[in-house]
Amino acid sequence: MSASPLLEKLIKSLQIMPGIGPRSAVRIAYHLLDRRREESVQLADTLKEAVEKIGLCSHCRDYSEEEVCPICASFKRKQSGQLCVVETPSDLLAVESSGNYFGQYFVLHGHLSPIDGVGPTELGIDILIKRLSAGEVKELILATNPTVEGDATASYIAALAKRYNISVSKLASGVPLGGDLDNIDEQTIAASLAHRRPY
Amino acid sequence: MSASPLLEKLIKSLQIMPGIGPRSAVRIAYHLLDRRREESVQLADTLKEAVEKIGLCSHCRDYSEEEVCPICASFKRKQSGQLCVVETPSDLLAVESSGNYFGQYFVLHGHLSPIDGVGPTELGIDILIKRLSAGEVKELILATNPTVEGDATASYIAALAKRYNISVSKLASGVPLGGDLDNIDEQTIAASLAHRRPY
Repeated sequence: MSASPLLEKLIKSLQIMPGIGPRSAVRIAYHLLDRRREESVQLADTLKEAVEKIGLCSHCRDYSEEEVCPICASFKRKQSGQLCVVETPSDLLAVESSGNYFGQYFVLHGHLSPIDGVGPTELGIDILIKRLSAGEVKELILATNPTVEGDATASYIAALAKRYNISVSKLASGVPLGGDLDNIDEQTIAASLAHRRPY
Repeated sequence: MSASPLLEKLIKSLQIMPGIGPRSAVRIAYHLLDRRREESVQLADTLKEAVEKIGLCSHCRDYSEEEVCPICASFKRKQSGQLCVVETPSDLLAVESSGNYFGQYFVLHGHLSPIDGVGPTELGIDILIKRLSAGEVKELILATNPTVEGDATASYIAALAKRYNISVSKLASGVPLGGDLDNIDEQTIAASLAHRRPY
């Protein structure tokens, strides 16, 4: 029996967040009530606003509160002629954080998975085809995850791009920088050997 | 550059929660937008309502949206004549979860710490004195943390209770159940030896 049904409701509600179990939820709820009341109101308002306003950019399907997101609206990025296909918005963020890519994106929101009912329609392939056929894309960079499903999705999209004579590339696979060969799985080592570069 | 300033605001705002850093905040934000939009609105509403409505129970200083919390309002608990003093609302929850205590509580919201400007006033000792002097409390159970500050606070409150001829007890210290003697610090072992019981 807690002294406050409302507090119990809050503790339960906090658990919709990934990685937040009952114990963390209790800790968070007490912390917010103890010391972060003002910021909590702001968080609540921002969360509600985000859920209400953030949809998908009609160009790249990344999350955006605009019809066309700032990345797609940028003339410089359009001019680059590069289009990078990623599985999720957080993958986009990862590529963007590398600071080495200045082109446009396309977010699939998943990968082909017929068993889960995820086909080309669910991944917005119709929108992608429209962009590929418009003639503005010179290079398509496949940045799907290096998994069986990611690779299958990549090869499907690569076949599409070839129809429009667009050159296609794929993120390099290999040993991560700073990694320790000891701790890297055999398949990655095999891939890095197969794709070894002249030094 | 994220595609959505609102999303960035949300990611920053999520970090007011303890244990949530930039990476977890990104993961949470995307998860909520991806799959939990309805529950997110509920979470936002509950959080706002909680911050607005939850104050301190005038009797025990636990969080409550009522003037007097359900625990203090319970006649059975009042009848027990027991009052358990804890440092924080989550300590109260811990005692309550043990399922072995059926009396009332008093929450200090901290411990005596002159260096941080926390004295009797900040801990609501005036309210506690009113309760002790009312003659309804037969036994005061000190459940402050077994730390230097917690012990100092406990001994201060014990002295108060003795003025009103109230019997005072303290949580037993010793080896935690299911613990492994190997992994328990020397001071706890020493305490459990000093307080050993006839078998």
